[in-house]
Amino acid sequence: MTKLLRSWVVSANTAETDFPLNNLPYGVFSTENDGPRCGVAIGDFVLDVQASEKAGFFDFDGTLQAPNWNAFMALGPERWAQLRARLSELLAEGSPDRSILGAFLTAQADATLHMPFQVSEYTDFYSSRHHAFNVGSLFRDPENALSPNWLHIPIGYNGRASSVVVSGTDIRRPNGQLKAPGSDAPVFGPSQRFDLELEMGAIVGQASEGPVSVQQADDMIFGYVLLNDWSARDIQAWEYQPLGPFQSKATATTISPWIVTKAALEPFRTATPSREVPLLPYLQEPGPMLFDIDLDVALAPEGRVETVLARTNYNEMYYSAAQQLAHHTSSGCPMQVGDLLGSGTISGPEPGNRGSLLELSWAGQQPVQLDTGEERTFLEDGDTLTLRGAAQGEGYRIGFGECTGTLLPTEVSS
Amino acid sequence: MTKLLRSWVVSANTAETDFPLNNLPYGVFSTENDGPRCGVAIGDFVLDVQASEKAGFFDFDGTLQAPNWNAFMALGPERWAQLRARLSELLAEGSPDRSILGAFLTAQADATLHMPFQVSEYTDFYSSRHHAFNVGSLFRDPENALSPNWLHIPIGYNGRASSVVVSGTDIRRPNGQLKAPGSDAPVFGPSQRFDLELEMGAIVGQASEGPVSVQQADDMIFGYVLLNDWSARDIQAWEYQPLGPFQSKATATTISPWIVTKAALEPFRTATPSREVPLLPYLQEPGPMLFDIDLDVALAPEGRVETVLARTNYNEMYYSAAQQLAHHTSSGCPMQVGDLLGSGTISGPEPGNRGSLLELSWAGQQPVQLDTGEERTFLEDGDTLTLRGAAQGEGYRIGFGECTGTLLPTEVSS
Repeated sequence: MTKLLRSWVVSANTAETDFPLNNLPYGVFSTENDGPRCGVAIGDFVLDVQASEKAGFFDFDGTLQAPNWNAFMALGPERWAQLRARLSELLAEGSPDRSILGAFLTAQADATLHMPFQVSEYTDFYSSRHHAFNVGSLFRDPENALSPNWLHIPIGYNGRASSVVVSGTDIRRPNGQLKAPGSDAPVFGPSQRFDLELEMGAIVGQASEGPVSVQQADDMIFGYVLLNDWSARDIQAWEYQPLGPFQSKATATTISPWIVTKAALEPFRTATPSREVPLLPYLQEPGPMLFDIDLDVALAPEGRVETVLARTNYNEMYYSAAQQLAHHTSSGCPMQVGDLLGSGTISGPEPGNRGSLLELSWAGQQPVQLDTGEERTFLEDGDTLTLRGAAQGEGYRIGFGECTGTLLPTEVSS
Repeated sequence: MTKLLRSWVVSANTAETDFPLNNLPYGVFSTENDGPRCGVAIGDFVLDVQASEKAGFFDFDGTLQAPNWNAFMALGPERWAQLRARLSELLAEGSPDRSILGAFLTAQADATLHMPFQVSEYTDFYSSRHHAFNVGSLFRDPENALSPNWLHIPIGYNGRASSVVVSGTDIRRPNGQLKAPGSDAPVFGPSQRFDLELEMGAIVGQASEGPVSVQQADDMIFGYVLLNDWSARDIQAWEYQPLGPFQSKATATTISPWIVTKAALEPFRTATPSREVPLLPYLQEPGPMLFDIDLDVALAPEGRVETVLARTNYNEMYYSAAQQLAHHTSSGCPMQVGDLLGSGTISGPEPGNRGSLLELSWAGQQPVQLDTGEERTFLEDGDTLTLRGAAQGEGYRIGFGECTGTLLPTEVSS
């Protein structure tokens, strides 16, 4: 396994930073005096990629002058590798350019982070075996928890790209149609069962017109983010038959602000689990396409310390993002640069590995105890939810930064 | 009811043209020598709107120089009304500008039509009572054909914007997972039950951040198109539980090339039907928000004459596009300029009013007879499907142009 690569940015040379030279994740930041522009995280700093290109340190056809990474992604894998190699060189210990580049560093504490890319379309999958089993047990039958298609298809649905927001954006508890068991008709009001979903998101960096193979799909993926797919369970329960979740999943989806590239995650590739039933050939992986990434989610009531609700790992997925993407194109569906694929809630085998309050509180029957002495079944107004994740190398970590959001009360209409 | 408004473009002054002066629908066209640009249909011609703005006949901040109508839509209803008023004046009989404008006309026969707007996101609803009843009867139970939520919610799901194509684009029969009743496992192959869906599409012309009322939603709609949501029934049957249709609806959705504005349709407003159960207040309409638009769909086998499969009317909807859009925002879901809302398949009460082969052939049990002597349960390779529609005024019609597409065989992978 690769070791820590040393940078002249001293804060990048620790085992604790999310952003060593091995990582180099891409984001969009602004400062008090300058608007949103492309940057790369290194230790406690962000290097201004826009300014670096302007200064002549590299040249990517002006794509790095845009306030998001879409145009750069469209250039393709060869150019992706070139920028990464050049940044690795420029930021390495002993780089002759450090004195000039030092002027292009901003402390992350002084930077506001924005959406790192423009989301073209957003698809959410349902590809964690334990999550699907838990949900199926709760709402259907533990004996037949998985729907008959689940072991054959990476089940997914189209989400709402306009609702994807960057970490730090406040979330407003939604109104919706709610129907209590036994009542004749629904009422309209604030969701009482608002929940988080701990997921990873894969970012499509290359467009396609027709069906692609799993290998081609893996090649098309530019990078990964943490993703919290906020979900209104009560709205979902009433609306989802027969065409699936709609408004229950449309309030917001939060992503972490740094795109961790597939290149940075290469040392952490791992295989999907052995198959319970054989996959059709178009879904079979030619190599390991999952990643070993530790994940957790914490809840902090308003003004109180946080409690880690669950710890899990991206390697718990039954289907990789490459498999999801290959399936996504199987009908001929065109994919676009900037498409975002949510993994689906990632749960592990143990109760402490469950990536949603729906599972953690077993649909509200078993309240979750917080370290503050409070308890939760679903989210309360003022709660701040924070996802964190990192792949653990030898003496370094490839971190994602925080994926956080605070739940505000429903807006009262005037 | 308004009468025919007369134009100096003589072919616009007939009861048969889709494009009298009363209509003025917006599209994007190209010619042998010039690329895609904004135009408006008048009789047998298209007026070059880009050139007209350049020549100083109006000024909409350069938005009409773009190769689609999105930037113009973003200007809002006041500016929409101004352009329509100005075009009505310029193209009216006796206009002093006719000699100059005549140079900006292209015969529609010489124009290639393109997507009139860039689709931001695409949502497909399920809002025809007869369609929902027919499908529920086929797949569930005629006694409980409507799902319990149907009379309360305009049920919808997010579709795939990247798959929306303009009329005239060939459609490729998709591959997908198919599972025969009684078989243990699915196979991967060409859909055997590929179908059309006769729908209308509403185009959102104004963005919103939070929930909007039904009246605000109606105000946000810029115009309407015909829409054929091609559907693979066999892929859908196997994939759709529990999260709804996905690849079965992702191959293509065809829209007609002209955006018929809401303004042109004003004389044809009509109310949704009386409610079987009361609607929640957020879905109640303050006035008539449907439109009386005759619709039909015809099938032509390769090289043969077409047969009209069904005739129906947009007034058969149980929910209007304004109600759908208000519901769409109820969770706080942000809407964007260029969002497209499919009505759902529009079926009427009689067998001849059914807007899909699924219903017309009663899931393949009752083949449909064509005028050529052939019959169909689902679509065959080489079939051309054409939707047509018009609101009928006194001595004129507000037509949509054709929404057509030909089904090609599945591509054999190399």
